[in-house]
Amino acid sequence: MSNEVNVNTTPMKASQTHKKQEFLKLGVIQHIDVTRMPGIVPVVDAMQHMAFSARDLHRAADIYDRMLKDTDCGVILTLAGSMISAGLKKVIVDMIRNNMVDAIVSTGANMVDQDFFEALGFKHYIAEDRLKSGLFDGELRDCALDRIYDTLIDEEELRICDDTTQKIFEEMEPGQHSSREFLLAMGEYLEKQGGPKCADSIIYECYKRDIPIFCPAFSDCSAGFGLVTHMVNRGDGPRASWDGGKDFYELTQVKIKNPTTGLLMIGGGVPKNFTQDIVVCAEVLGHDAPMHKYAVQVTVADVRDGALSSSTLKEASSWGKVDTVYEQMVFSEATIAVPLIVGYAYHTGSHKARKAKRWSQIFEPTAIA
Amino acid sequence: MSNEVNVNTTPMKASQTHKKQEFLKLGVIQHIDVTRMPGIVPVVDAMQHMAFSARDLHRAADIYDRMLKDTDCGVILTLAGSMISAGLKKVIVDMIRNNMVDAIVSTGANMVDQDFFEALGFKHYIAEDRLKSGLFDGELRDCALDRIYDTLIDEEELRICDDTTQKIFEEMEPGQHSSREFLLAMGEYLEKQGGPKCADSIIYECYKRDIPIFCPAFSDCSAGFGLVTHMVNRGDGPRASWDGGKDFYELTQVKIKNPTTGLLMIGGGVPKNFTQDIVVCAEVLGHDAPMHKYAVQVTVADVRDGALSSSTLKEASSWGKVDTVYEQMVFSEATIAVPLIVGYAYHTGSHKARKAKRWSQIFEPTAIA
Amino acid sequence: MSNEVNVNTTPMKASQTHKKQEFLKLGVIQHIDVTRMPGIVPVVDAMQHMAFSARDLHRAADIYDRMLKDTDCGVILTLAGSMISAGLKKVIVDMIRNNMVDAIVSTGANMVDQDFFEALGFKHYIAEDRLKSGLFDGELRDCALDRIYDTLIDEEELRICDDTTQKIFEEMEPGQHSSREFLLAMGEYLEKQGGPKCADSIIYECYKRDIPIFCPAFSDCSAGFGLVTHMVNRGDGPRASWDGGKDFYELTQVKIKNPTTGLLMIGGGVPKNFTQDIVVCAEVLGHDAPMHKYAVQVTVADVRDGALSSSTLKEASSWGKVDTVYEQMVFSEATIAVPLIVGYAYHTGSHKARKAKRWSQIFEPTAIA
Amino acid sequence: MSNEVNVNTTPMKASQTHKKQEFLKLGVIQHIDVTRMPGIVPVVDAMQHMAFSARDLHRAADIYDRMLKDTDCGVILTLAGSMISAGLKKVIVDMIRNNMVDAIVSTGANMVDQDFFEALGFKHYIAEDRLKSGLFDGELRDCALDRIYDTLIDEEELRICDDTTQKIFEEMEPGQHSSREFLLAMGEYLEKQGGPKCADSIIYECYKRDIPIFCPAFSDCSAGFGLVTHMVNRGDGPRASWDGGKDFYELTQVKIKNPTTGLLMIGGGVPKNFTQDIVVCAEVLGHDAPMHKYAVQVTVADVRDGALSSSTLKEASSWGKVDTVYEQMVFSEATIAVPLIVGYAYHTGSHKARKAKRWSQIFEPTAIA
Repeated sequence: MSNEVNVNTTPMKASQTHKKQEFLKLGVIQHIDVTRMPGIVPVVDAMQHMAFSARDLHRAADIYDRMLKDTDCGVILTLAGSMISAGLKKVIVDMIRNNMVDAIVSTGANMVDQDFFEALGFKHYIAEDRLKSGLFDGELRDCALDRIYDTLIDEEELRICDDTTQKIFEEMEPGQHSSREFLLAMGEYLEKQGGPKCADSIIYECYKRDIPIFCPAFSDCSAGFGLVTHMVNRGDGPRASWDGGKDFYELTQVKIKNPTTGLLMIGGGVPKNFTQDIVVCAEVLGHDAPMHKYAVQVTVADVRDGALSSSTLKEASSWGKVDTVYEQMVFSEATIAVPLIVGYAYHTGSHKARKAKRWSQIFEPTAIA
Repeated sequence: MSNEVNVNTTPMKASQTHKKQEFLKLGVIQHIDVTRMPGIVPVVDAMQHMAFSARDLHRAADIYDRMLKDTDCGVILTLAGSMISAGLKKVIVDMIRNNMVDAIVSTGANMVDQDFFEALGFKHYIAEDRLKSGLFDGELRDCALDRIYDTLIDEEELRICDDTTQKIFEEMEPGQHSSREFLLAMGEYLEKQGGPKCADSIIYECYKRDIPIFCPAFSDCSAGFGLVTHMVNRGDGPRASWDGGKDFYELTQVKIKNPTTGLLMIGGGVPKNFTQDIVVCAEVLGHDAPMHKYAVQVTVADVRDGALSSSTLKEASSWGKVDTVYEQMVFSEATIAVPLIVGYAYHTGSHKARKAKRWSQIFEPTAIA
Repeated sequence: MSNEVNVNTTPMKASQTHKKQEFLKLGVIQHIDVTRMPGIVPVVDAMQHMAFSARDLHRAADIYDRMLKDTDCGVILTLAGSMISAGLKKVIVDMIRNNMVDAIVSTGANMVDQDFFEALGFKHYIAEDRLKSGLFDGELRDCALDRIYDTLIDEEELRICDDTTQKIFEEMEPGQHSSREFLLAMGEYLEKQGGPKCADSIIYECYKRDIPIFCPAFSDCSAGFGLVTHMVNRGDGPRASWDGGKDFYELTQVKIKNPTTGLLMIGGGVPKNFTQDIVVCAEVLGHDAPMHKYAVQVTVADVRDGALSSSTLKEASSWGKVDTVYEQMVFSEATIAVPLIVGYAYHTGSHKARKAKRWSQIFEPTAIA
Repeated sequence: MSNEVNVNTTPMKASQTHKKQEFLKLGVIQHIDVTRMPGIVPVVDAMQHMAFSARDLHRAADIYDRMLKDTDCGVILTLAGSMISAGLKKVIVDMIRNNMVDAIVSTGANMVDQDFFEALGFKHYIAEDRLKSGLFDGELRDCALDRIYDTLIDEEELRICDDTTQKIFEEMEPGQHSSREFLLAMGEYLEKQGGPKCADSIIYECYKRDIPIFCPAFSDCSAGFGLVTHMVNRGDGPRASWDGGKDFYELTQVKIKNPTTGLLMIGGGVPKNFTQDIVVCAEVLGHDAPMHKYAVQVTVADVRDGALSSSTLKEASSWGKVDTVYEQMVFSEATIAVPLIVGYAYHTGSHKARKAKRWSQIFEPTAIA
């Protein structure tokens, strides 16, 4: 009797029309594969001797390369903005497969609405240029198409994603879980289903390689709908709940156990701030953890409004979070800068001498519950 | 024996020096009081007939005024970026006192690190211009001074704030709480202490007026340190934990019970997205909730990177979240635009005919626990 | 026979339609009158103790006020971006009438296409929000309506403006003239016509008060069409030509004769750079001219691309152009920030003790020709 | 006796110090050579199927490639921002050498202060990161070092550049010249000196290949000092003067004689606006010139302030300047985007079937004087 409440999988706005296929005619987003592009290296190398953002981009790529060469260093990737729907999924999967990242801290949307969504076999669609104007959003709504700037999502498919998260949560042990545990359960689900229904999945790949993923605002995504419907379903009975404090505890444990860390930050927001804060949290708990030794951020955010997305890495050093020797901000939209930075580090090959940290093993099977 | 782990209230970086007072010599941030500035009205009125951001700002102020005139409409304020430390606290407190807002969804930093911090009697300091360069962040660190662009915080005071949150959490009922419940407990704490140790406090004022506050990334702030130390203290024993899914459930209940809603959004990020999503969540739970009828956002974020801070309100309508008749984005840094928008709405006086919604009463004493 | 070539005053794209009036239905741009808004002063005063752009805006207003209090100081206003069509004309005219500015360096568009255009009796129109999308620009073109973001201009009226500049140039003495001389001739023309056909005109007011106006890219505006048609008309015969080098010579003479100078810069571009450069030009000619003592810039431009619009005023000091004691950049769109800055300085009243510099008299009647 | 006034080649601020060499220790700017980077092609090709700026960048590269394939099309490059000092000189020289550009419209700084400056044997220097803060600009000034964001110029060398322009202008025929003629004289000067004292020079390469260069704000650069000193030197005697109206006339002649045109715009400002305006000027002169058929712009400028740098290419179509079928804006800092766009077009090889337009021959020897 526990399954009376379910995700309403047909959005009320979906009045099926022939228009829908017309809107989707430009085809699907395809993820860039930098492993096939060794030609990135001379481009980035040349940028070292230029000015402005090119020089910054080179230095960011060089710092990421230094993180990989420093085998003590654990690399934490933070993700904000719609990066997976934008075509950067394979870049991140290739980082995972090649020991170029040890933990991921992300917005829920990137992991659940976008990566897990594609792992269920769905796709993101290229929107026509005119749709960016916003003037057709009413028509898109009638077709149950959601827009991310120049990209479209089929809302009916997204509801299936919402619904699937609920089903997974229904199977979990009742109790308080970190987002890492929920994402692990999603990886297990994919495994049981015979793997993702697409070539690459971050959640699945991390599951297989003991790479923890944290979503410190986990209810703010497709999984949020699963959390709520699961909660309503269970009523007063025991249920799996997301314990956000546990996320912070767990990521701090990583810092305590592996003091040398480097951050590769795509966008800012909660993932950036949350990850920077673990240095302070370790200290609050009485551990003398060093600041993040390396830090790179790619963002278009403006530094002048005091927002977290844009606060400079130098500023973070006043808080005792980020050391200032190896830090670099790159003011560029990520779809251009990230393939260059990661492609550069991939083809210089420093990852080859690097071992997987398998940080998920810190928590299993001894995590606080 | 439960109190063995406490916040380490002396940051390791604090090597007390005479420099510290030198850095703080420019005095403290003072909060603008728009209730004394009726002269805002003719300025904003004149902007209606200009171009560019001035015209947008007028329209945003006019839409906010329409929200207040529409007595069915519940007004939700979302807050991202360091707005309280920037001098906008009294603007928000005046909105609360004058029935101009019914719920707040905020980053944790604004509520805990900044508003609650000031309620404990601490202040934010004006930084010298040269500090913005980042070149003195090492020196600031040695003085245990944290920098937010052009503003300074005394880290030792912030540790007391962290520590106080832990103490409050230790007194709470064990179990799964929404961030609203934690923030309510913080308001109760202030009440027990005889009120805030400063003229105005958002948390305290909301506590007294049954205005719910949600922090959907609640562990990503000073309270996060309290959550972690409380967790470590309790070990395997019962404890108060933050249940982020419950936040989403509760705010959705507001939408279901008060279908007509308007959003005043300062910055973007998780507060913006989370609040927009409650429309969809209501639908997922089988309720036919209308889109947010009014929406205003003030941001400097760039629309072209697909990030949540900047996605236009038109875009949100494709997701079925925000209606497009009364929506307006104002691309301006908030410290300039928000006093003009709120001051305009205050002095037009539409709030006088408006009653408090007292939405906190939806949850007490029948909230799911 | 000299008048065979004339401006083609009916644009080819003008297929008169009833749509045109429909596009213009929202009425005309009206210029903000800050002289009636003493309520600006407490708003800007309060911003002094806030953070971010508000604090910067206060400091900019204070520096402008210092320029006016320093009676040795000559104030040069630089203008880029479409400021007149945006509703800032009266702000500038009020500066002129109240001895708050001594010279103007502007893009041609602000002076000719916009101020002179309105002086001929034409208006700028408010565009509907949807037109900003660009999707209706083809339709606008069919109606001979030109768009500046959210503002419309009737191209047929603009052609009359082009044509009028040619007529004025035909009457000028043949020879090499600075843009100042052309703009003076335009002021004289308005005088002969009985004054501008609108309440306020920058060109006319400057003409009457001996305030020189320079447009260092003078051919890049409506006057450019006049220059070309005049040139073609005259063939090999003598004609009035624009000598851009003379502009630089003349503005440098101002600096040499009045060494203490302050800059109020709205936008950046050529007007900003050109005006900063006169310090170096004075030195190149062997004069020991001091740097600009005061400098304020209002811009949304990004500092990170090395462009002139955005290069900081500190950077200008490395070039020996701008002193760093009293300099302030305000990162804000001008239609919001400029009324606050100028309104503040107007109502503090420092201009009352200030005398007009009447710098045009430096050049008349002894200018090099 | 005509040479009594000369450029004051030792800047007053130059108090020679050992610090100067210290500031210059990071070495010189080196120009990226995209002809050796065929690996750009697969990167840009992959961007076609991504989102956000990557997709825009691909489309911009594709449109530039279409311009080159359309052999009727004349390609006009516009340049604003400090692009040559930033390391993009060789990209442009390679465009010239490979028939990928037919005319250049630029800020004076790019052509004279930067390209001609390097042709005289001088270099641009890489500044240390800390210098970007502006806090060392006083020290830089004492060393006669000028800063462009993260790049340094030796002011004493720049004075020699100023001085050389004067010497060239002294040798020119007295009369009214377009900037194209001045820049041609600078190319001739380099030829007489045995070619540029560096590997590549835009001015020299254009001179040899009959590619006209226009600087529509020619007095706003190093040449401006030459114009002024030449003017002062000649007193009332005949001299070479810059006739800005002639620039507009000449570039319009290009449009009339070669109606199909494409624009590759790096930055905005006067070069962008001036070049777009030739369509209207042709119409004003009674010619039925089509709009620019292709248009690409790379800029970081904000679209919302109505400034020319940022007005969208769609907006230009309302003015009858740019057709909307093949237009694309890329919001990116140019040092990253331009090597990718030009490198892509170079390696696809469309230029190989293209002939030089040699547009300078339109004006020589029959130019109006």
